[in-house]
Amino acid sequence: MKILVVGANGQIGRHLVSFIQENDSLEAKAMIRKQEQASFFENLGAETVVADLEQDTEAIAKAAEGVDAIVFVAGSGPHTGKDKTIMVDLDGAVKTVEAAKIAGVKRFIMISSFDTTRAAIQDASSSFAPYVAAKHYADEWLKRTDLDYTIIHPGRLTNDKGTKKVEAATEVERNEIPREDVASVIVASLENEKTIGKEFQVVTGAKSIKDAIDII
Amino acid sequence: MKILVVGANGQIGRHLVSFIQENDSLEAKAMIRKQEQASFFENLGAETVVADLEQDTEAIAKAAEGVDAIVFVAGSGPHTGKDKTIMVDLDGAVKTVEAAKIAGVKRFIMISSFDTTRAAIQDASSSFAPYVAAKHYADEWLKRTDLDYTIIHPGRLTNDKGTKKVEAATEVERNEIPREDVASVIVASLENEKTIGKEFQVVTGAKSIKDAIDII
Repeated sequence: MKILVVGANGQIGRHLVSFIQENDSLEAKAMIRKQEQASFFENLGAETVVADLEQDTEAIAKAAEGVDAIVFVAGSGPHTGKDKTIMVDLDGAVKTVEAAKIAGVKRFIMISSFDTTRAAIQDASSSFAPYVAAKHYADEWLKRTDLDYTIIHPGRLTNDKGTKKVEAATEVERNEIPREDVASVIVASLENEKTIGKEFQVVTGAKSIKDAIDII
Repeated sequence: MKILVVGANGQIGRHLVSFIQENDSLEAKAMIRKQEQASFFENLGAETVVADLEQDTEAIAKAAEGVDAIVFVAGSGPHTGKDKTIMVDLDGAVKTVEAAKIAGVKRFIMISSFDTTRAAIQDASSSFAPYVAAKHYADEWLKRTDLDYTIIHPGRLTNDKGTKKVEAATEVERNEIPREDVASVIVASLENEKTIGKEFQVVTGAKSIKDAIDII
C-alpha cells in the first residue's frame, strides 16, 4: 500500500514516513512544500512530491496519483497567522479531501485536534477557538464524503519518545501523547480496516496500539 | 411575516430594518450585540433582541423565537483580525443556520460575497482569500440543509443612494451595488418564493428589483 503523507515535513509527518518505510507492506510518498526538504525522505528511501496546500485541488490530486491512501498530518503551526488557520487547516484539508476523490483514492486518514465538537469550539479560549473551528469544519467535510475515512483526535502532543501504549476510544480523558505514538497509531489504522468510518480520541495509556485500535 | 435580522446594526442591516418596517406585511426583530444599539431600531418601531454570534447556538436560537424568517447580514468587518473571519463570518453564520433549525424557522436568507466558489478562493489575494473561504464554507453549510434558503451574492458594496435598478442572475458581470439596494433585494426576495433554493449575484443594472428577482 502506497500512502501520500500530506504534511510530511512536520514533526508527526517525519515519524510517520520513517515508520511506513520500516514496514514491509507499506511505502510512503512524502508531499513536501520545497525541494530542499526532500533529502530527509530520500534517505529513508521514500518517494517525494513537491506540492503546496495553498495550490489548487488539481495540484494536490496530481500529487496523489498512484497512491492507495492519503494521510493528512499538515498543520499551519502555532506561529502563523489566523489567515493560515483558514487557508491550511480548513481549506487545505478540504482540498486534499476533494483531491482524493479526483485521484480515486478511497482511504483517507485525517489527523484532527483532540476535541473538534461544536461544544469544544464554544469552550475554547479566543486564541485557540479559530483553530478548533477550522478543524471542526474540515472533519465535518470529510465525514460527509463517501471516502473510507478515519479521523484521529490525539491528545496534547509532546516530543517525548513513543511508548507504544495508548488509550483510544470515542471519548477518553484528556492527556498527552508523543507525536511518535501518533505516527504509530496512524500506521496501525492503515493496517486495520475496522477503523474505516470511525473517529477516535487517543492519548498515552496502558494498551498496545494494535489492541487499542482494534476495539474502536 | 416577522424577520430576525442578524447583524442589524451593520450598514446593510440598518437599511434593511428600515425597509422592513416601512412594509405593511413585514416586521423586523433586530438582533444587536449591545443594548446601547437599540434606540435606532426602537425609533423605527422594530423589536430588538441582544445576542452575539460568538455565543452558543442556543442563544441565537432563543433570539430567533417567534420569527418566520432569518436574514444573515452580519460580517466581521474589514478592520478585525482573521480570527473573527472564522468565528463570525464562518462559525457565526453556521450557528445561525443551526439556530434556525432549532427554532423551527424554515426561511433563511444569507448575504454572501460576490463570488464564493472554490475558484474564487484560489484566485483571491492572500489577504482576501480567508474571507472568501469563510463565506464559501458558510454557504456550503446552508445549501446542505433543508431550509428554504436564498443566497445573495452582491457586487462591490458602496454607500451610494440606492437606484432600485439591478441586474441579477447566477452569474453577472462584476460591478458595484449600493448597500441600500442590497437591502431592497433582500426584501424583494422575502416577498418572492421563487427565490427559495436559489443563489444569485446582484449588481446595479437596468431592471426593477422586483422583475430582476422574479426571473432568477
